[in-house]
Amino acid sequence: MSACPLLDYSRLCIHTATTKPWNLETACTEYARAGVRGITVWRDALEACGPMRAASVIKSSDLEVVSLCRGGFFTHGSVLERQRALDDNRRAIEEAHIIGAPLIVLVCGARPGQPLSTSREQIADGIAAILPDAVAAGVKLAVEPLHPMYSGDRSAINTLKQANDLALLFPPDSVGVAVDVYHVWWDDTLPDELARCGRNKRLFAFHVCDWKLDTNHILLDRGLPGEGCIPIRAIRAQVEQAGFTGFIEVEVFSQRLWAMDQGTSLTHILHSYRNHV
Amino acid sequence: MSACPLLDYSRLCIHTATTKPWNLETACTEYARAGVRGITVWRDALEACGPMRAASVIKSSDLEVVSLCRGGFFTHGSVLERQRALDDNRRAIEEAHIIGAPLIVLVCGARPGQPLSTSREQIADGIAAILPDAVAAGVKLAVEPLHPMYSGDRSAINTLKQANDLALLFPPDSVGVAVDVYHVWWDDTLPDELARCGRNKRLFAFHVCDWKLDTNHILLDRGLPGEGCIPIRAIRAQVEQAGFTGFIEVEVFSQRLWAMDQGTSLTHILHSYRNHV
Repeated sequence: MSACPLLDYSRLCIHTATTKPWNLETACTEYARAGVRGITVWRDALEACGPMRAASVIKSSDLEVVSLCRGGFFTHGSVLERQRALDDNRRAIEEAHIIGAPLIVLVCGARPGQPLSTSREQIADGIAAILPDAVAAGVKLAVEPLHPMYSGDRSAINTLKQANDLALLFPPDSVGVAVDVYHVWWDDTLPDELARCGRNKRLFAFHVCDWKLDTNHILLDRGLPGEGCIPIRAIRAQVEQAGFTGFIEVEVFSQRLWAMDQGTSLTHILHSYRNHV
Repeated sequence: MSACPLLDYSRLCIHTATTKPWNLETACTEYARAGVRGITVWRDALEACGPMRAASVIKSSDLEVVSLCRGGFFTHGSVLERQRALDDNRRAIEEAHIIGAPLIVLVCGARPGQPLSTSREQIADGIAAILPDAVAAGVKLAVEPLHPMYSGDRSAINTLKQANDLALLFPPDSVGVAVDVYHVWWDDTLPDELARCGRNKRLFAFHVCDWKLDTNHILLDRGLPGEGCIPIRAIRAQVEQAGFTGFIEVEVFSQRLWAMDQGTSLTHILHSYRNHV
């Protein structure tokens, strides 16, 4: 089963990290001018102008804020490190609240040399600790499973099954999952876990990009949809079958894309969205 | 649970690919002189001298041949491609027989743009097709699950569970699994699947290396044991708990290591084996 092509940009959301060389104002102006309806804001994009100013910039562009990226990194080697992580996540919750982001995406963390099982316990503990603040601020949390090549130092949550299991420890409408095709496409349990995620109303976000066969950098060489081998449209069909009707977020970290004129880059993003998502 | 350090090299096997700049003769001489007892031969190391000459070189060094790397790449887009893959695997079986390798490690293949499920069917079909030749030659086959970052074009078998399921389609003593910590360390089903693998007498080979946090190349920047974050000794304990008593194979593809004087490199290998495996 596949899905029909997307004929307009009404469900397209772009991550500021995808057009990283643009500041937030330029990104908002250019996304809106191109007909894009959603924006996911990375925290580095808030640094230059602060969240209050960012809120007014986004509001005047009429874009919908889909999420704030990112919170997480809950793993720690001491009480002090734990506290620092929680403080940073609480700042992220404040920022999300100010800019009107209904969701924070969590890259959960991993600690080299520490068993992944210990990291997973610390992650569950960290989410539990910040959840009251998130609920009070009207902000949901989305656990993003990361590709196993990030198990070393970025996330001990590496499959959708693990993300589902983790989210289900918490009340509905508070903690869910962000599914990025880049991280999960290889997994033969993906169809079942997407269905389970939807059944439990935990499918909070859907990110797309592509896996380039000649990947030259583990972090910064993602492809635009169509540049790689991920069956994106087939996965979108499964995501929609699971009940997801939200924004489709183009999140591409690419030194190659960032080195381009960003107007040209945006044209490529739009083209790849129509033809390959 | 962890395992006791290895006090001598009686269970150490080195892959010729680990000391790639050495030809087979030098590798045999130097491994044997260092007290290493086993060698796994990569097919490129056979090209220079041919399998007959290789057999006599290895025999005179008194090293035990642990396996031949590698067969596989069964995926195809046409009958012709399928035939080519089978032919190549049959050549590998002949080579293994000639050099006295009791085992061929299979990197099973993946085909960009083809569903991974289709690739898995082609892989099972390919193994079934060559198995009679392998049995006749007295050579076993070991399915090596590859890290999900190789799903695009190297292997559609990316977890130990998939490798176990695949091996169990075939008679005992014919098809098993080669477990490389690099590919499976992140997987939370690893302890259970190692136990299952052992219970079914399918644990045919155990490879070690390390995951460097600053990995700069997806294929050629593996670390020596101790240079990364894989809990190698803990995994070895699980492998031995599952009944494995065979060679421990150091398989490290590293441009950094290959650029060194290979005598120095061998010293590093021995040191890392004693201290981190």
